[in-house]
Amino acid sequence: MTKLKKVQLNAPYLVLIGDLTDPTYAKTGFGLVQWQPDRVAGQLRFAGCTLDLGVPDMTVPEAVKAGVKSLVIGVAPIGGTVPDKWWDSIEEAARAGLDIVCGLHLKLADIPAVAAAAEASGARLIDVRTPPGNLPIGTGIKRSGKRVLTVGTDCAIGKKYTALALHQALQKAGINSTFRASGQTGIMLAGEGVPIDAVVADFISGAAELISPDNEDAHWDVIEGQGSLFHPGYSGVSLGLLHGSQPDAFVLCHDATRKFVSGWEQYPLPSIGEAIDQHVLLGSRTNPDIRCVGISINTSKLSEDDRRAYLAEMHAETGLPCVDPIIDGCGDIADHMKQLYTE
Amino acid sequence: MTKLKKVQLNAPYLVLIGDLTDPTYAKTGFGLVQWQPDRVAGQLRFAGCTLDLGVPDMTVPEAVKAGVKSLVIGVAPIGGTVPDKWWDSIEEAARAGLDIVCGLHLKLADIPAVAAAAEASGARLIDVRTPPGNLPIGTGIKRSGKRVLTVGTDCAIGKKYTALALHQALQKAGINSTFRASGQTGIMLAGEGVPIDAVVADFISGAAELISPDNEDAHWDVIEGQGSLFHPGYSGVSLGLLHGSQPDAFVLCHDATRKFVSGWEQYPLPSIGEAIDQHVLLGSRTNPDIRCVGISINTSKLSEDDRRAYLAEMHAETGLPCVDPIIDGCGDIADHMKQLYTE
Repeated sequence: MTKLKKVQLNAPYLVLIGDLTDPTYAKTGFGLVQWQPDRVAGQLRFAGCTLDLGVPDMTVPEAVKAGVKSLVIGVAPIGGTVPDKWWDSIEEAARAGLDIVCGLHLKLADIPAVAAAAEASGARLIDVRTPPGNLPIGTGIKRSGKRVLTVGTDCAIGKKYTALALHQALQKAGINSTFRASGQTGIMLAGEGVPIDAVVADFISGAAELISPDNEDAHWDVIEGQGSLFHPGYSGVSLGLLHGSQPDAFVLCHDATRKFVSGWEQYPLPSIGEAIDQHVLLGSRTNPDIRCVGISINTSKLSEDDRRAYLAEMHAETGLPCVDPIIDGCGDIADHMKQLYTE
Repeated sequence: MTKLKKVQLNAPYLVLIGDLTDPTYAKTGFGLVQWQPDRVAGQLRFAGCTLDLGVPDMTVPEAVKAGVKSLVIGVAPIGGTVPDKWWDSIEEAARAGLDIVCGLHLKLADIPAVAAAAEASGARLIDVRTPPGNLPIGTGIKRSGKRVLTVGTDCAIGKKYTALALHQALQKAGINSTFRASGQTGIMLAGEGVPIDAVVADFISGAAELISPDNEDAHWDVIEGQGSLFHPGYSGVSLGLLHGSQPDAFVLCHDATRKFVSGWEQYPLPSIGEAIDQHVLLGSRTNPDIRCVGISINTSKLSEDDRRAYLAEMHAETGLPCVDPIIDGCGDIADHMKQLYTE
């Protein structure tokens, strides 16, 4: 088997929902249908399942007949534990030759029945949390094409969602772009990527360089950010990703009502101005042209009036398009980028 | 066996020099004798060896009798390849119950004869490049005691040497200190540590926190830096180590004649002023009191006159003690720290 440098998945997918009843646990499945409907052929549900991704129900044999290439296990019902019934279906899929794509903490190869079934059929067992083993050191060499990275004042603040929404908005604006994934859910959505927080520290920038390779001059890679430069636990990941991505542009993600690093409450979040300045300062090491092109803000806890006032004030302060990507989309940011880079 | 969170070595050591003739390859052995003479009981040399660490020659049985706990393999003769004769001695030592401490790229456990010998005797096989598997995420919680970190404008610019020399100078100045290692050679010298560039990216800061745990208020940990914030390949490691170390002080290491990142020649080195400012800016996230306390400069390519002029100019520019640690030692920096922090 060729040694892949990225995690790479084969579509279309059959998404395993099993007997889930809580939509939180089917987030990856819903995300796939929302952002990558062309990659999803069907869902595999058991009796008792109250969720519906809105795609055809399929058994494993039906999926094989329909040309499905991979069975995707998004999230397990309870903290990584998968019920026996699920394993029976996973084993059946592996035996039928479907790649098994897994975002759980466990390793598929550690499940003997699944490992044996995959061995027999030649199916791949893909743990999307596990990075490839032959990553290079970052070269710092300038790549062709353009890149925009989503960054944040904190973790879990909308970087993946913003990247997906911006990619969609760029395409609507007629700009050729690709969503580039750096985390497990993003990889399942994009079909490829490197889980950057799981690589060995020496290779962060090198992995980031692989995520957004050379491309056409006018093409934009929209790169999913990870962590935050201001996070006392994860800043190293964020700086390596920033340096390796060499972004021409970044979108800063923030939460209108969050004041402290979530779970690290002794650390106040930086101001928007500080956050922009620090990303420009550090990012300019590998791309002197780096600039902030927009602010993406979670305003879900504000009233409509407060929300408008907050975004207007932020716009006045920064001169940049400021959006809540879930409510407004990222069209304003895409338009601003179009003005800046193509007119 | 208890799961160690750091790599921890048992002294005293028998240092394996084998039949080396080039002192470059015995760097770790010479370093041990220079910086940690109390930890070295003897050397194991073969016929043809032209090097001498200046410690007693011992066979494995003699070492066991003398209470030696570990056989240390510093560097192999040629790019990680160890001749059969060496393996015979390593196996003999493992069979006799000595821990085998190895800084090579290979894994000791992959050598069947050595693995079997260690299994039989209960000796540990310690690859100092391999970090412990149960590292925590960085907490960002303030620790007691004081810390000084060596940082650099580039990799391989004297951070380990400066930390060792500063530790020695602090002790001479009557300040209680400990050298804390973040790289493989440093770990062999200190007897413990975490190879920070080999940990999984999410755990860089957490590993850095383990390296310099809580201590007495007046105690200084002198922490060996890694990489450089300005390095396009390794900056993530350096930022995670900076944030996790929470240093009160740092010493900036530089090379008087180096203009570009070594091996990444399209990247100019930052000025001393820029480098100080950026470390203060970023380091203040986890320790608002961070300050630069000295500059450590490799002046080996300058004439004595140029060297003096260079250091004087640097001192005038920064107001800080500026030394070449190999020529001057780090006494001036230790004195400055004593003034700043204890008077």
